[in-house]
Amino acid sequence: MSISPENEHPQKVVGWAARDASGVLSPFNFSRRANGEEDVTIKIAYCGMCHSDLHCIRNEWRNAIYPVVPGHEIAGMVTEVGSNVKEFKVGDKVGVGCMVGACHTCEACEQSLENLCPKGIFTYNSINYDSTITYGGYSDKFVVDKRYVVRFPENLPLDAAAPLLCAGITAYSPMKYYGLAEPGKHLGIVGLGGLGHVAVKFAKAFGVKITVISTSPSKEKEAIEILGADKFLVSRDPEQMQAAMGTMDYILDTVSAKHPLVPLFSLLKANGKLIMVGLPEQAFQFPVFPLIFGRKLIGGSHIGGMKETQEMIDFAGKHNITADIEVIKIDYVNTAMERLANADVRYRFVIDVANSLSA
Amino acid sequence: MSISPENEHPQKVVGWAARDASGVLSPFNFSRRANGEEDVTIKIAYCGMCHSDLHCIRNEWRNAIYPVVPGHEIAGMVTEVGSNVKEFKVGDKVGVGCMVGACHTCEACEQSLENLCPKGIFTYNSINYDSTITYGGYSDKFVVDKRYVVRFPENLPLDAAAPLLCAGITAYSPMKYYGLAEPGKHLGIVGLGGLGHVAVKFAKAFGVKITVISTSPSKEKEAIEILGADKFLVSRDPEQMQAAMGTMDYILDTVSAKHPLVPLFSLLKANGKLIMVGLPEQAFQFPVFPLIFGRKLIGGSHIGGMKETQEMIDFAGKHNITADIEVIKIDYVNTAMERLANADVRYRFVIDVANSLSA
Repeated sequence: MSISPENEHPQKVVGWAARDASGVLSPFNFSRRANGEEDVTIKIAYCGMCHSDLHCIRNEWRNAIYPVVPGHEIAGMVTEVGSNVKEFKVGDKVGVGCMVGACHTCEACEQSLENLCPKGIFTYNSINYDSTITYGGYSDKFVVDKRYVVRFPENLPLDAAAPLLCAGITAYSPMKYYGLAEPGKHLGIVGLGGLGHVAVKFAKAFGVKITVISTSPSKEKEAIEILGADKFLVSRDPEQMQAAMGTMDYILDTVSAKHPLVPLFSLLKANGKLIMVGLPEQAFQFPVFPLIFGRKLIGGSHIGGMKETQEMIDFAGKHNITADIEVIKIDYVNTAMERLANADVRYRFVIDVANSLSA
Repeated sequence: MSISPENEHPQKVVGWAARDASGVLSPFNFSRRANGEEDVTIKIAYCGMCHSDLHCIRNEWRNAIYPVVPGHEIAGMVTEVGSNVKEFKVGDKVGVGCMVGACHTCEACEQSLENLCPKGIFTYNSINYDSTITYGGYSDKFVVDKRYVVRFPENLPLDAAAPLLCAGITAYSPMKYYGLAEPGKHLGIVGLGGLGHVAVKFAKAFGVKITVISTSPSKEKEAIEILGADKFLVSRDPEQMQAAMGTMDYILDTVSAKHPLVPLFSLLKANGKLIMVGLPEQAFQFPVFPLIFGRKLIGGSHIGGMKETQEMIDFAGKHNITADIEVIKIDYVNTAMERLANADVRYRFVIDVANSLSA
């Protein structure tokens, strides 16, 4: 007889879970392991709502393990630390992003690229070391290996900083790795959603010239006047696209929906780089000639390692970068998911866990 | 009335040209410009036969301007230099590769990346500065701007070194640019033809571990025993492919025919790079998930700039790298083209121009 999620561990937790591909979330009692020697227990204050949460609860990636407690943009306060934890103390403002484990012996892990470890364990919907399922941050309490805890700079508000743990590192890491962040270079950012708007903020801090590329002309004013992009390009306008051909050094593509790559490729100069961080389900088609004759490349990137995640959040602190958010109570979460599906949010929902979810 | 190719310039030249998409080559009298102040005139000794020559004469890229005199792996002796040419003198052993002109003012040209200049002029089948058509090295004489002349190291035989001007730089440039040439790293080289076998030689000189990936099991012995590859992988053997998954740092893909990329992608470790230098006509399909979760990239590369071409040939001289060739007389050229189409050559035909073609 298998043990119920409520009784498999000693620490009682309340959260909200989806039970099937309808994706409807409702209260769920479960449990977390006792705080181990290397562990940190966190009272969750806020949890951001990432588009991946929506994909997962609706089983759009066909890998959901129900019940699913989503949430990997977790911010809160330390309430307990293990005997081997010197890095954090009770009361510290900390966060947990998309990962809670990795093998720590492979080539990737040795470079603190836990995000590339083939045995990486995700914050929710993943199999933990002890074979139980991981449950995410739509819940009141979290227990995690200290190596996956990020310290928030004092100046960042926890609610608006929480989304940086996924959206922030997803934008920051490829800018560093692929060299997109060179001051004075021209970077196109495709899509102005939760991920894209944070990418614009980091790119501005790096001093690059930014063109936001979007299907929605309605976002132009906000992109330029509020977020500070230099230009706005409507990807469905052939004249605008034609005029912008060969003008960009790099493009960061944050869009998850399938979309044509060839027009984006045409926007790049020689040696241009198109970096994809969205997660479309379908395969893309691309012609080899522009790749070869322009010495261009298509690359991907997926969050970042733990060392770099701390570096990103410190950089965000220094430059006062946070996400633009709409704070909600937990009982609004199903409505928020609907709005997220319709891209009706500027730009990230964050659940006020501490004030709306309690045991 | 347009002037005939034979009379449009003062220097008489004999060559072999294709007149239509049959691709059959036959003798052709034409002319080249007088040697200008910045020019070098070359008596052609040898010209390599690149697969591109075949594509072009048969109009497979749909851009042939007949008559086409192919040939962009040209080696010979300087017979005349212009008054502003201090870099070369009569009697020097020199070569000309795929390019004879560029704008010299754009961002690419400023970095000696003439190969990426949008106004680049190719050695044949291209429109020259004076609006005449460029004719390639299947001919006895060449006149060219000194900036497109490469000096051969004394120790390299002209016949076996000629193919380096296309195949050599095509392999060398991406190894440098994309960082494939790190000693100790594991590089897969897809295809063991004119390009692939030269790539193996350069990779060996750089000290990387090499696996040749081929559809032809018959090439294993030669790849390992003669060319010195470390391993051989038959891409059509699912068991071999399965066993090699995740073992390679980089892959250089030299194959022009359409072929599936996903299995090649699976061979790469995290952070792996798949670099394409073949020129397939059709679009490729690729899924984004492996790109993103492994932080992999697909890049292209096309020959190299003039500064790097000289660097490549000097490196080849230092490491005694040449192509494995079969020298032919010009009247064998149509048979050689048939054999090239059937991949029946190890590994490059080189035309003995000086001893078989004369006015």
